[in-house]
Amino acid sequence: MEKISKLAICGVGLIGGSFACALKQAGAVERVVGVGRNREGLEQAVTLGVIDEIASSPAAGVSDADLVLLAAPVRQTSNLLAEIAPTLPATAVISDVGSTKSDAVEIARRVLGPAFARFVPGHPIAGAETSGVGAARADLFRGRQVVLTPEADTDASALERIRAVWEACGAEVSLLDAGTHDAIFASVSHLPHLLAFALVDVLAQRDNAAQLFSFCGSGFRDFTRIAGSSPEMWRDIALANRDALLRELKSYRNELEKLEQLICNGDGASLEQVFSRARESRNRYLGQRTLD
Amino acid sequence: MEKISKLAICGVGLIGGSFACALKQAGAVERVVGVGRNREGLEQAVTLGVIDEIASSPAAGVSDADLVLLAAPVRQTSNLLAEIAPTLPATAVISDVGSTKSDAVEIARRVLGPAFARFVPGHPIAGAETSGVGAARADLFRGRQVVLTPEADTDASALERIRAVWEACGAEVSLLDAGTHDAIFASVSHLPHLLAFALVDVLAQRDNAAQLFSFCGSGFRDFTRIAGSSPEMWRDIALANRDALLRELKSYRNELEKLEQLICNGDGASLEQVFSRARESRNRYLGQRTLD
Repeated sequence: MEKISKLAICGVGLIGGSFACALKQAGAVERVVGVGRNREGLEQAVTLGVIDEIASSPAAGVSDADLVLLAAPVRQTSNLLAEIAPTLPATAVISDVGSTKSDAVEIARRVLGPAFARFVPGHPIAGAETSGVGAARADLFRGRQVVLTPEADTDASALERIRAVWEACGAEVSLLDAGTHDAIFASVSHLPHLLAFALVDVLAQRDNAAQLFSFCGSGFRDFTRIAGSSPEMWRDIALANRDALLRELKSYRNELEKLEQLICNGDGASLEQVFSRARESRNRYLGQRTLD
Repeated sequence: MEKISKLAICGVGLIGGSFACALKQAGAVERVVGVGRNREGLEQAVTLGVIDEIASSPAAGVSDADLVLLAAPVRQTSNLLAEIAPTLPATAVISDVGSTKSDAVEIARRVLGPAFARFVPGHPIAGAETSGVGAARADLFRGRQVVLTPEADTDASALERIRAVWEACGAEVSLLDAGTHDAIFASVSHLPHLLAFALVDVLAQRDNAAQLFSFCGSGFRDFTRIAGSSPEMWRDIALANRDALLRELKSYRNELEKLEQLICNGDGASLEQVFSRARESRNRYLGQRTLD
C-alpha cells in the first residue's frame, strides 16, 4: 500500500483514534493531524501519540491531506463537510465511520458536489461502548469487519485506497449498497440496541427497580450491555435509519405477539419449537456459546 | 455447619453436580448419592468424583439421606417427589433449584403432605447456558445469589439448614415469598430470555438470514447469548410462570410501541431521554460496562 503522507482525522475519539493508531503501527502513515472541537481530547491525543498535531481549523486540517476520515458524531457530518470542502485537495480521498450509510451518502453528495466521487462511505463493525481517545487502541479493528458502501459514481481508485487502508488496520472489508447496509444493520444492530434500552428503561421506571436489578444474573448483564451505549449516538442512528428500524420493530412486535399467544394458550410444543429453532440458528451462525 | 451425612442429588447435571462439588470441596458432606434416569451421565459423575455412588432408584437414593436436592428438569418434580416420598426420612430436608417457585411450592405441598414443612424452595442464580455434569464445578455458586422462598409453614430449622448449605457453597442467600420471586424473575430473567429467542427466531426465518448473521457484532452476540439456553427448560419456565410473564410481555410491548411512536414522530429529544435514563440506570445498578 502506498504510504499516506498526511492523514486528517475529524473527531479523534475511540474510532478515529484507533484508526490512527492502527495505521501508525502498520507504518502506513507519515503524519496524522487531528481536527475537532474538543481541545482537551485533542491534546490528550497528542500526548498519547495518537496524532502528531492539532489542526487550527477543519479547513487547515485537510489542506494537503491525502486521506480524510470523518469520525465525529454523525450530526456534525454536514457542517464538517461544508467546512473542509473549500480546502480539500482534488486528490484527497474521504471516508466516514457512521453506523448508517444512506444518510451519509445523501449528505456527502449534496455538500461535496463533484468531490463526492472520492467519498467512500464506510462502517467499521467494532465495539464502541467505551468512548474517547483514551480508549483508542491499534488492534481495535483487527479481525473485525468494515463495510464500504460505494455508489455507482464512486471513484474506483478511491474505493481501492480506502479498502487497502482498512486492510492495513487488520480489518476484513466487504461491500454493500447503502440501502442494503442500512436494512441489515437495522436488524442486527439498531433493533437490538433499541430492545436493550427499552428493557432497562421499562424496569428502571418501576417502584421496585432497585430490587429488580439486585437479582440480575449474567444473562441480563449481557443482554443489556448495549444499553450502556451513547444515547446521543443511538438517537441519531434511530432517526437516520427510521424507515428500516420501524419495519424491524413492527416485525419484532409481531413475533412477540405470536409468543404471547403461545404462552396464553399453554402451547408448550410450539414454544419449544421456536426456542429450539432460535438456539439452533444462533449456534449455527454464531458458534456454540460458552459459559462466562 | 453440621456435616451432611448422606446427600441425595436427584438430577446430576451442571447445577446438581456443582452443588455436590462445592459441598465436597467445603468438607461439608460425607457421601453423595446420585439419582437419575441418565445412566451415562451418572457414571460420568462417578468417574469425575462428583458423586460417590449411583442409587438403584429414587426411593433407594433418598433412604437414610439427611439432605435431598431436586435438580432434575422441573417437569419431573411431581413424579420424583411421589417416588421419594415413601422412603424419605422424617428428618430429611429437601430443596430444589427450579427457576419458578410458586409451581414448585404447589406441587410439593400436594405431593409431600406433612413432609412439605421440610421442603425449602430454592433458586440459585447461576449461569446455566452449558449443561451436563461435565460442566460442573465447585465454584459455580461462589459469590452468586441463591433465593429461598419459604412458606408460612416451612420448618425454621429446615430453612436454616438449607441456608447454611448454600453458604457453604459460597453463595449469598436471600429470602423472598414465592410470588414475589416469580414476578421479579419474570422481569429480569424470563422476559429477556424470551426477547432473545424472539430476535434470533425472527431473523433466522428471513431469506437472507445467513447474510444478516454474518454482520453481527459483539453487541448482538452478547444480546442473544441467552438464546443458546435449553429450549425445554425455557418452555417449562414460560408456562410455569405464565401470568407474570404475560404481564411483562404486555408492559414491554407497550414500551416498544412508545419508542416506535417517538421514532415515527422524529422526536429525538424524547428518544435521547429514554436512552439516557436506561444507560444511567444500567450503570447505577449494574456498574459501568467495559469493552470486551
